[in-house]
Parts: sequence; C-alpha cells; structure tokens
Amino acid sequence: MESRNIRLAVIPGDGIGTEVVAEGLKVLEAVGTKIEPTHYDLGAARYHRTGETLPDAVLEELRGYDAILLGAVGDPSVPPGVLERDLLLRLRFEFDHYVNLRPVKLFPGVATPLADTPAENIDMIVVREGTEGLYAGTGGVMRRGTPHEIATQESLNTAYGVERVVRYAFEKAKSRPRKKLTLVHKTNVLTYAGDLWQRTVNRVAEEFPEVTTDYSHIDAASMFFVSQPERFDVVVTDNLFGDIITDLGAAIAGGIGLAASGNINPERSTPSMFEPVHGSAPDIAGQGKADPTATILSVAMLLDHLGLHAESARVEQAVADDIVDRLAGWAGRTTHEIGDDITARVSG
Amino acid sequence: MESRNIRLAVIPGDGIGTEVVAEGLKVLEAVGTKIEPTHYDLGAARYHRTGETLPDAVLEELRGYDAILLGAVGDPSVPPGVLERDLLLRLRFEFDHYVNLRPVKLFPGVATPLADTPAENIDMIVVREGTEGLYAGTGGVMRRGTPHEIATQESLNTAYGVERVVRYAFEKAKSRPRKKLTLVHKTNVLTYAGDLWQRTVNRVAEEFPEVTTDYSHIDAASMFFVSQPERFDVVVTDNLFGDIITDLGAAIAGGIGLAASGNINPERSTPSMFEPVHGSAPDIAGQGKADPTATILSVAMLLDHLGLHAESARVEQAVADDIVDRLAGWAGRTTHEIGDDITARVSG
Ligand SMILES: CC(C)[C@H](C(=O)O)[C@@H](O)C(=O)O
Ligand SMILES: CC(C)[C@H](C(=O)O)[C@@H](O)C(=O)O
Repeated sequence: MESRNIRLAVIPGDGIGTEVVAEGLKVLEAVGTKIEPTHYDLGAARYHRTGETLPDAVLEELRGYDAILLGAVGDPSVPPGVLERDLLLRLRFEFDHYVNLRPVKLFPGVATPLADTPAENIDMIVVREGTEGLYAGTGGVMRRGTPHEIATQESLNTAYGVERVVRYAFEKAKSRPRKKLTLVHKTNVLTYAGDLWQRTVNRVAEEFPEVTTDYSHIDAASMFFVSQPERFDVVVTDNLFGDIITDLGAAIAGGIGLAASGNINPERSTPSMFEPVHGSAPDIAGQGKADPTATILSVAMLLDHLGLHAESARVEQAVADDIVDRLAGWAGRTTHEIGDDITARVSG
Repeated sequence: MESRNIRLAVIPGDGIGTEVVAEGLKVLEAVGTKIEPTHYDLGAARYHRTGETLPDAVLEELRGYDAILLGAVGDPSVPPGVLERDLLLRLRFEFDHYVNLRPVKLFPGVATPLADTPAENIDMIVVREGTEGLYAGTGGVMRRGTPHEIATQESLNTAYGVERVVRYAFEKAKSRPRKKLTLVHKTNVLTYAGDLWQRTVNRVAEEFPEVTTDYSHIDAASMFFVSQPERFDVVVTDNLFGDIITDLGAAIAGGIGLAASGNINPERSTPSMFEPVHGSAPDIAGQGKADPTATILSVAMLLDHLGLHAESARVEQAVADDIVDRLAGWAGRTTHEIGDDITARVSG
C-alpha cells in the first residue's frame, strides 16, 4: 500500500505540548507515511515576544495544509482566555471544526477509577459541537469592579449548526454495532436551545430508523458516566456540555493521559486539527513526565481522517499493546521512552 | 431540651416525591419536634386539573412558613421545563434561595463506584449559586422550526449575586477543619462571568486569611471528582456548573438515593426549602422502590437550618447507622421499610 504525502502543520504550543508532539511525530514517521511537517511557534512564547496569538497571514497559510497536529496551549503568564480564545478556539472557529470528536474507550489493561467496570462497558464516542453555543464568546460586562457590575455570557445556537453535527452523530451511530445515539442537554432549564436540539434530533432520527435515540440531562449524564457508562454508545451534545463530559469521559477511561480528540470539518474544506484532550500542564512541563499516548492516539485519528485506515489501525494497536505491557511492570517511563516503545511497535 | 414549633409547608410534588416525603415526615415527627405540616398539591396533577403551576396566592401563603419540604417535580405528561421553571425554579427565585447547599459525603459502609477510595476522601460541600447564571431563563428563539432558526440562552451574573454566595462559601470553609475553598468555573472561555467570579473570590479571600483558595475549570473538576475527590473541601460555583457537579458528587458518594440539598436564604427573610437532589423518577413511581434516605437527610439539613442541631444530628446518625446495617444483609427494602427502620432508630 502506497502512502500519500501529507502536508502537516504542527503547533506544539505550550508546556508539555512540545514534548508530546515530538513523540506523536516520531510515531507518524515510523508508521511509514510520507509526512512533510512544518512547525509553527504559536503559543505563549510568541505572544510574549511579539504580542501575536494567531496572525491573519499564518491563519491563511495553515489553510493550505492537509491537517494540523496541536499539542496544547495555555500558560499562567498569559491572562486566562487569551491563548484559548485567540489561538485554539479561533482555529476551531475559522476552520469550521464543527465536529469535535472524542472517543471514550477503556483499553483493556488500563485501570479505570470505577470499581467493577469491565473494559467493554466503556466504549463510546462523544460528538461535541465545536463552533457555537457558549463558546461563541458573546456577552459583556458593565460597571466592572463596582458593586453594580453585571457580566453576561450568551449561548448562540443555530438550526444550521445543530443539524449538521446531529447528522454527523447519527451517521456515526449507524456505523457502530449498537447504533444508539444519546442527546445530552438541559432541556428543562435551557428551554430555547434545548428545544432546538431536541427537535433537530427528533427530525433527523426519522432518516435513521436503524438508530435508537435516547435523551439525558447533562446532570444525569454525568452521574451515568460513573454509575452506568454502558448506557452510552454515541453521545451528541453542545460545546460546553461536551467539554465537561469528555473530561469526565477521560477520567473514567483511564485518565487524561490517554484521551485523544479531533476537531473535524467533515466536508474537508479546511484542515482538520488533532490534539490531546489534556492541557499544557505547566506544573510538569520540561520534566519528561507527560504521557504522550493521548497525542499518539490523536495521530491515529488524524491518519484515519486522511483515509490512511491501515496506518491508523497500526498506531492504535501499538498503543493497545504498549498498554497491556504497562500492566506487567511498567514503572515511570519518561515521555521519550513511551514514545520510543510505541514507535518500535509501529515500525516492527 | 424543648423543641420549638415548626410551621412546615410540604410539597410532595410528582412521581416518587410523594413516597419519599411521607417517610421524611415520619422521621421528623419521631425526632420529637412539634411540626405543623401543611400539604400543598403543587405539581403535574394540579397543572392538568387547573392549569396552575404556582398561583401567586399560594406563593404568598408559602412565604409565611418556617421552611418548605419538597419531594420532586416533573412529569413526562407536562412539556419539559414547565414545572421546573414555573414551580421549582420560581420558588428558588422568589424566595431568593441564593445558596443551594449540597453536601457530597461518603457515609462509611456505602459502596462508591470509585475503586480504592476510602470514605474519608469524599467529604465536601458544594455551595451552588441558586438565583442567577443560565437559570435566569433569558434568551429567545427566532424563525423557530425553519432552517434559519437561532436560539439563545443568557447567563446573567451580578456582583451582588456572586459576592453573597462566595462570602457564604468562605464562612463555610472557615468552619471546617480543612478550611479550603475551590472556585469551579470556566474562566478561560466564559471570560466575562469568569472574571467576575474570580475577582470576587480574590477580594473576599482577603477577609479570610485562614482559608486556602484554589481554582479548577469545570471540565478538570469533573475529572478530579472521579480521580482525586480528596482535593475538594468547600466548592463554590455557579448555578449550572453546580447542577452538574452535584449530580456527579451524588454518583461518587453512593448514588442519588442519598443526596440531600437545601435551598437556603441565609438571611432568613423567606422560608428555606429542602429537597432530595433526585428527580421525580416517573419510571419507578408508585412501586415503593424509591430510597427515602435523600429526603430524610434533607430533613436533617432542615432541622439544622432551624437551629435544632441535636435533632439534626440524631437524624443523620440514624441514617449512618441504617447504612452500616445495609452492609450486613440489606436486600431490597421498600421505601416504607427504610423509612420505618430509620424512624425506629430516631425514636429509640
Ligand atoms: C482550553 C479550552 C479552551 C478547551 C475547551 O474548553 O474546549 C479545552 O478544555 C478542550 O476541551 O479542548
Ligand atoms: C429539575 C431541575 C430544574 C433542577 C435543576 O437543574 O436545578 C434539578 O436538576 C436540581 O439539581 O435540583
């Protein structure tokens, strides 16, 4: 099988981002794809040096790539929200990554914090909307710093934005053995947005008679993730609920060190972007302590998205094998060592 | 010790609400308080009969009580949000229940779904804001049912509303052995509201030098509830994040059957309202399957709020003892039987 050339933009970002991305690239090379990686130094360092987060010219350049691999952005030296909004979220918005795809899957051999939960009980995919809701960033503040301050945030939801992600989620559900889709929202309190989401799911469901649909309020869903994770197959939800539930998903599936994600534009009119769910973890940065597995699994998602299904499967299998071996005496490998071990399996 | 008279408004509500409230009242009588309960038939049945959710005259009558005991509201025969908004949330808003107090405490002997977690690791109190945020209900819809529909929801946050609940949370933290307060929010995305919350915590913290403060994003906090619940002592958060995190808290502390809550007006200018965290559970209603323990623990919170500390402690102890006995061969007692067993311990 011939691999096609991949033009890959690499944004290592901040903190442990650079460390884990290096391992992801090693695996990507070892799996035998012809990649042309180009590094972009976006993140806290550049912000401090030049004041720039994501210059328009760089954004336009990025548009020309097949995909983007991102490590993590965020640093305590930058005010909260600046890099998140102006770099990470801006990429998601400008490239219309309306599907934020986050598998929640317990690999056999991984310790889950949940007692008595066999690996097969935790095997779902969360389809998080990526371009609207409370992430639109609208809102404001008045009389800041006074006793009369008011601060608002607005959740913007459109039929266009909701329908396309719901449709994607139904397609996903249709392709999986259990064919079940659960809408997670809070329709009893967020009545306007909830009504739009629920009506959209009901309408699209008619086109997918083979898919069973279910509904859970976000509060109940958070409980069920812990008490009955087997309830879920494909979950579709809005941007903020998806953010919360996928971190919870990472926790039950063995921790944030293993959670991968793809910010996807299914029409492929822009490069999709793959990144571990974890953040930049400044407290452990530079110490070789970060687990690069989440990034390596994000690389597997990237390969799959680009149609390199065999390569994707090999990377995922290498991770699964590495994890089984952790059971038999893994003790404190460094970021590099984990990357090397998985690389060896992929090449071998 | 003389108990004072309590004028109690009782709103059993829908589904299992009536079943669990009956047991709560039994315990309340057994503990030796002189209560004068008055029942109000608010909920789905009345809504269907008269179209009323909470008539203004009833609201004014309720204002005259010392406290309210509520079971649960919500029924599939009523459109989502109607009873929640017009009855439950209206009571919280009209009576300015700005503190929604939700202990997350693992009783010794209760099985937590978390592996390797000793009971003492799960012992926190969530102080959820109860009167603003996304629960304000503002927002709207345009071009409903068309491809051009947009639906919005607005989160309203005021310095007045945030400061008073933050101050309450600091007082709570100060009174507890660990004296730690964690703000849970999403300051990197909800920048306007997050900034107000964070600045308020920073400012009030100066008045409480003995309290350690910490911050966690809601996504990370959801993860930590599962992986490191011992991080938390007192959590302060907004209305929606508090809703989510306390259901998750209920899950890790042994399930929704045990989770109590108080909707509190600390100034006592209105009656505070106590209710189990669980809903009306129409699927098991009328079958005697509901666990009344959450309501009985809510009764303990009610007694404590009214200054009846000894009685409150006796109810809590009776529950703790009942739970220890569940270990030794509890198998499927009915709602009544659990209520009777706890009542016997309280009286005996
Ligand atoms: C860093 C932050 C803006 C981001 C989000 O909230 O989407 C992160 O938590 C994630 O889940 O990718
Ligand atoms: C029924 C619903 C409106 C309510 C809420 O969201 O506050 C419930 O989930 C709760 O936590 O008391």
